[in-house]
Amino acid sequence: MNLAESIQQGDRRALARGLTLVENETPEGVALLAALGSGGTAHRIGITGPPGAGKSTLVSALIAAWRATNATVGVLAVDPSSPFTGGALLGDRIRMLAHTADEHVFIRSLASRGALGGLAAGVYNAADLLDAAGFDPVLLETVGVGQGEVEICRAADTTVVVLAPGSGDIVQGMKAGLLEIADILVINQADREGADALEAALQSAVELRDAVAPPIVRTIATRGEGVPELRALLDERAAAGAEVLAARRLERARARLRAAADRHRAEAFWTSHGEALETAAVEVAEGRLSAAAAVSRLLEDERR
Amino acid sequence: MNLAESIQQGDRRALARGLTLVENETPEGVALLAALGSGGTAHRIGITGPPGAGKSTLVSALIAAWRATNATVGVLAVDPSSPFTGGALLGDRIRMLAHTADEHVFIRSLASRGALGGLAAGVYNAADLLDAAGFDPVLLETVGVGQGEVEICRAADTTVVVLAPGSGDIVQGMKAGLLEIADILVINQADREGADALEAALQSAVELRDAVAPPIVRTIATRGEGVPELRALLDERAAAGAEVLAARRLERARARLRAAADRHRAEAFWTSHGEALETAAVEVAEGRLSAAAAVSRLLEDERR
Repeated sequence: MNLAESIQQGDRRALARGLTLVENETPEGVALLAALGSGGTAHRIGITGPPGAGKSTLVSALIAAWRATNATVGVLAVDPSSPFTGGALLGDRIRMLAHTADEHVFIRSLASRGALGGLAAGVYNAADLLDAAGFDPVLLETVGVGQGEVEICRAADTTVVVLAPGSGDIVQGMKAGLLEIADILVINQADREGADALEAALQSAVELRDAVAPPIVRTIATRGEGVPELRALLDERAAAGAEVLAARRLERARARLRAAADRHRAEAFWTSHGEALETAAVEVAEGRLSAAAAVSRLLEDERR
Repeated sequence: MNLAESIQQGDRRALARGLTLVENETPEGVALLAALGSGGTAHRIGITGPPGAGKSTLVSALIAAWRATNATVGVLAVDPSSPFTGGALLGDRIRMLAHTADEHVFIRSLASRGALGGLAAGVYNAADLLDAAGFDPVLLETVGVGQGEVEICRAADTTVVVLAPGSGDIVQGMKAGLLEIADILVINQADREGADALEAALQSAVELRDAVAPPIVRTIATRGEGVPELRALLDERAAAGAEVLAARRLERARARLRAAADRHRAEAFWTSHGEALETAAVEVAEGRLSAAAAVSRLLEDERR
């Protein structure tokens, strides 16, 4: 039995091996995705928000809700903020909370190794694989608030932004553009002081957007409160299907193909122009050549 | 008198106009940089750290120290975290604090407009222009903590990371890789509780680095305390000159040329392959084509 078949039979080790292959964009990974077909039926849900908002508890509660109706759930926990990551990743915490023994839940941590572009490509591919392997929904978790999170959430059909009262999160969230990409806003720890103020602030913030204002849901994830409402909103989007998600999926495909082609072209170019780059860099560093002139020289071959 | 000459004569309006040209990488901007020569003598100092660490007060105190010895100071205040920026930029705050009337201090805010790559290129060019116009040092300020800040600091000869006690900044700073890029660490607001604990934590954190541990300086910027010590460290690095900074400058030139060439090549490619991208994106979005196959097809023309 080959790897694609083993994955389709639900072999978790095969899936883990497959994920490593596609994450790193190996030729075997490309072949594996081709063998499995392109999937594309799973609802891909990005869940993001600042640390401390209770994301992992909320995700754990959501998983339990899906499991209660026999959905199989794939989770990719991504930390785009740094290759120098220290603490435990979200995925580890979710695992600790509950679902390790459940064979219908698959959780994987993806860490940034170097360029953001490479990580985003790995996330796209890993989500494709989980999708093709029959997981639905596929969750894309991110840790933190930043440009990287926004990037990762582009791989999702639906983006859920989780905030908590009284943490000043909203300012950070707005700066990072998180509110701009939210399809659903969650106020977790809604029993804490400041929930009303946060909701009011969110209301006025989202009214500034060009797009339709996203619904705001209050949850207390530790007690499961609000989780059915959140799940209902997510199911609604998934059920609306093509109409609601088509534009998002087209945009995602466009961005993904563009980035992948750019990466391949750049790799090929520098493989043959590495020496020319070194020479030019030395001249620029020593102030003998302007950067613009150096770039023109590097591109000259191609223009001819 | 042409623009380059006006800038060399110290005409501030000409400088402002020139910065707009080079920031946006216009052909006129490229010509202007060529006319001015490549500069390359100014000490480029990146100053970064989380909001609330007192960066703008510290920068203001540093500017005063440099002005006292007749240095002319250029400041580029950069917010890479978001195109949706709301609050006042660092540059505005520095301006308010002091140096508006001083013709030997030039402060400019650069905001992110879209891609991070484009912003970084604008920062490189703007620093080149200030350098060529005779400003030394040139400060590159960033607001916040993230991959964008690390990116911007690559344009600096020397990176100063500013933290304050009792804010949990160190964890965020480590995650974002800020401690990895610090040449000098500043504990500002050093009279606050927690300064000793922060220093101890920084000490153990920097010992994990491969490179030489950076010096740690304590400042109380509001009273100017520690500022002469910080300035002395910066002057020391500038005086050491070529030996200390050569490797950094070469690395910077390499990254800069590579990014600029990639950007130009991608632009040219998508100008002629825009339609092919749309077609492929639709097929991928509808699940009729795998992303890998789509990318191969897009690159086929070129490979032949």
